Amino acid sequence: MGDTTNLNFAGSHILSIDQFQREDILKIFSTADMMEPYAARQSQTRVLEGAILGNMFFESSTRTRISFGAAFNLLGGEVRETSGFESSAIVKGESLKDTARVLSGYSDIICMRHPTEGSVAEFASASRVPVVNGGDGHNEHPTQALLDLYTIQRELKGSGGNLDSFRIAMIGDLKFGRTVHSLARLLCLFDPSRIVLVSPQELSMPGELVEALKAAGHEVVETDQLNEGISGVDIVYSTRIQEERFPSAEEADLYRGKFRLNQAIYTENCQPNTVIMHPLPRDSRAEANELDSDLDSNPNLAIFRQADNGVLVRMALFALIFDVVHLVDKHASELPWRSTRHNI
Amino acid sequence: MGDTTNLNFAGSHILSIDQFQREDILKIFSTADMMEPYAARQSQTRVLEGAILGNMFFESSTRTRISFGAAFNLLGGEVRETSGFESSAIVKGESLKDTARVLSGYSDIICMRHPTEGSVAEFASASRVPVVNGGDGHNEHPTQALLDLYTIQRELKGSGGNLDSFRIAMIGDLKFGRTVHSLARLLCLFDPSRIVLVSPQELSMPGELVEALKAAGHEVVETDQLNEGISGVDIVYSTRIQEERFPSAEEADLYRGKFRLNQAIYTENCQPNTVIMHPLPRDSRAEANELDSDLDSNPNLAIFRQADNGVLVRMALFALIFDVVHLVDKHASELPWRSTRHNI
Amino acid sequence: MGDTTNLNFAGSHILSIDQFQREDILKIFSTADMMEPYAARQSQTRVLEGAILGNMFFESSTRTRISFGAAFNLLGGEVRETSGFESSAIVKGESLKDTARVLSGYSDIICMRHPTEGSVAEFASASRVPVVNGGDGHNEHPTQALLDLYTIQRELKGSGGNLDSFRIAMIGDLKFGRTVHSLARLLCLFDPSRIVLVSPQELSMPGELVEALKAAGHEVVETDQLNEGISGVDIVYSTRIQEERFPSAEEADLYRGKFRLNQAIYTENCQPNTVIMHPLPRDSRAEANELDSDLDSNPNLAIFRQADNGVLVRMALFALIFDVVHLVDKHASELPWRSTRHNI
Repeated sequence: MGDTTNLNFAGSHILSIDQFQREDILKIFSTADMMEPYAARQSQTRVLEGAILGNMFFESSTRTRISFGAAFNLLGGEVRETSGFESSAIVKGESLKDTARVLSGYSDIICMRHPTEGSVAEFASASRVPVVNGGDGHNEHPTQALLDLYTIQRELKGSGGNLDSFRIAMIGDLKFGRTVHSLARLLCLFDPSRIVLVSPQELSMPGELVEALKAAGHEVVETDQLNEGISGVDIVYSTRIQEERFPSAEEADLYRGKFRLNQAIYTENCQPNTVIMHPLPRDSRAEANELDSDLDSNPNLAIFRQADNGVLVRMALFALIFDVVHLVDKHASELPWRSTRHNI
Repeated sequence: MGDTTNLNFAGSHILSIDQFQREDILKIFSTADMMEPYAARQSQTRVLEGAILGNMFFESSTRTRISFGAAFNLLGGEVRETSGFESSAIVKGESLKDTARVLSGYSDIICMRHPTEGSVAEFASASRVPVVNGGDGHNEHPTQALLDLYTIQRELKGSGGNLDSFRIAMIGDLKFGRTVHSLARLLCLFDPSRIVLVSPQELSMPGELVEALKAAGHEVVETDQLNEGISGVDIVYSTRIQEERFPSAEEADLYRGKFRLNQAIYTENCQPNTVIMHPLPRDSRAEANELDSDLDSNPNLAIFRQADNGVLVRMALFALIFDVVHLVDKHASELPWRSTRHNI
Repeated sequence: MGDTTNLNFAGSHILSIDQFQREDILKIFSTADMMEPYAARQSQTRVLEGAILGNMFFESSTRTRISFGAAFNLLGGEVRETSGFESSAIVKGESLKDTARVLSGYSDIICMRHPTEGSVAEFASASRVPVVNGGDGHNEHPTQALLDLYTIQRELKGSGGNLDSFRIAMIGDLKFGRTVHSLARLLCLFDPSRIVLVSPQELSMPGELVEALKAAGHEVVETDQLNEGISGVDIVYSTRIQEERFPSAEEADLYRGKFRLNQAIYTENCQPNTVIMHPLPRDSRAEANELDSDLDSNPNLAIFRQADNGVLVRMALFALIFDVVHLVDKHASELPWRSTRHNI
């Protein structure tokens, strides 16, 4: 923890959150802060003019794909992309390494999503340009983990908190949920004072991750009671529970709706400024174990700011990989038009 | 009619033609005229440099999607897009409002097509950026209606006519056809001297629309005879008749080919300068109730100019929504290359 | 041969390699050489700023589509595209000419791929902008043929060879393979000293093409022995053999793996600098009749340089069609960032 070994981002692949030290993450976040005027359309920068992003989504994910593309456009670059298995090349027996060597001839950086675990790393090993993992099956989705932690940092700022002193409850399917696993691993690099894990017993956080959190010095509490879990925390991180994850239909019935947070439960159990997060999409149907839409007017509902932050984090990663952080403002200019976009 | 209440376009959604007054429409058309040198590649403007269009086509429509995207590019902006239901977010129970709040964080304006009536308005209600309806099921497709009326205005100019003094025949399925309904509603804001509705009796224009046209002071004639209907008009607006719309196969047989316009019928019944329009695509198969391809060399066949005009109208809407109409020429510059594109 | 009739590229369609004379091809290749600093990101050019490519892929082909799009971006232009039959317009009976007249209103040039032979030429006949054939079924894929020949020229340069003095072996399915047919036809415009055709007898080169090669003055050798075929040549051009092409399963069994080149066979039979080419994708599965991955570290394996050259050739064609070859360098400027891309 607190290791000062700084990753040299320039030209690097971004494949896993495990490649980051604490200082790397703080560097990404301070760079993301720098991006805000551009993302908010107060001015524009053309620092990546002439650069091409190959946005290679071999598995569909509209929002992640558009978020990467928009982030690259906001730095002045162009985007070429694919949005699903349209090619028959793999059917024809082409190796992922051949695909990588060919496609990496067409762009200056590649963001890639693929349904198979490990596929993005294999692709990166043969790519001639940096590769950013946009999700490889159940394995990794590092930019989601980064934007989650970045959102926590930003939301805590309002109340004077920081990543080394806060309390968080993670709720839902903690056994299979990729986002909570990644967030837990990132939290090992910081010093939150209390981590509450709220889940059905059958879907509790894997033992090794709980041990890692404890080994990092955190107080970890496990519970299957929502009300108890969310009291006295600064951040509530809610996630989806897929019914098919339960060992039996009876178990699913037993827990249905038990982890659904709504305004009444929030008012009764949470502190006034408790921030609500969710990786999205959330299931808005009545029987879902997620966030009720009656929370939508709650100013502490941070789920859309969280999605917005994804653009800032992705811009930051691009600027770091292209090694142009110091040039972003130098290539800034006024926008000819004025944005009518409002934030939330 | 002739109401002077002017819509404030800046930052507005474009969801329905019903939001427009006569003056709004004339403003769109005069702005579209201004766009012509840029669409014709006589010079370029970069007035929307740094802006991103989210071209969200949740239902496929290649030409409408490309037309919106090209219009935005011609103003100097970038386009991020989706072209079909690739995402599983909706399957996972996400509300359209959540989708809107997330996607509207990635762009400065959204053009959206969706198979469900009312979906675009619902999306717009939660969007943080202006939304332009690119078609929501059987409900609305306002830019198609605008480009149709704009085409009529332009085509009439040659013969000294205008939107307050002309005669039009609308042909085909007037019961279910979205484009003829929209056009009829727009015509209520102007004063054409004669409107002829040519259709099988089972597919005639809904009574309320006929009444609205009459209430607006128009002379309305209904007939199921093509030859009679197209004589003495300035504009023939032909549309598709889908056979499955007929109440029975016998009815369909009865009318097959009866509303197909070809050069011989045109020569026999139309005035020399009668303009032929169609929303496209037209069915070019021999048995279709549409426009015969022997009309292709007729200089009054305006169907491709009509499609071209869509780019002008969409550029105009973008310029009005971004409130940059007065800046378009200011940000103009010479093109480094010369277009070999020829118009028709 | 050696005809000096020069195609006037400006505003022309590129539909078939048969439209080129020897001088045209040399012009394309010298233009492609000029593009190298831009493709290598040593600087950028904005010569096609304001131009829009309509990248109309009615049949999926990720790499060809991205290669065209990247080439256009590298010249400063924008890309609007479609990547598969998403539209129902054709289902509704629209003619390809109508589609062409509409779509050609949205862009300044169109690259098109379509599964039907002759479809791109038919489309081009009604297009108002130049059309480049990106593959029309089994018929033509002229930019692939050009990049193949361009690669031969570049690879030969190292050893002092040129297109009028070299020896080549073409291997695989020479009966149905579109790429080898196109390459053979292009070779008729030059004077290679020896052409070896290596294939199963059932999949040998069509007689008319063999005759054309001989009529052009080439020495042509036909064999079904790989080892013999690849000895003493400068270029080995390997292609896929699809098992379903054999007249019977027994034939397929007989030849399985017999045309697979690996490092051991290469070392034993080839000269030290024999260049290995393949149109890609290659089948990397063990039983395939193609290139073994143990050749990947062989510096003479040119298959990825070949794919890279596709960008140069496509940039060259765009510059020639837009008639801006003399302006490319004039509109060059420094890139704000430095590429970390490495070539192979």
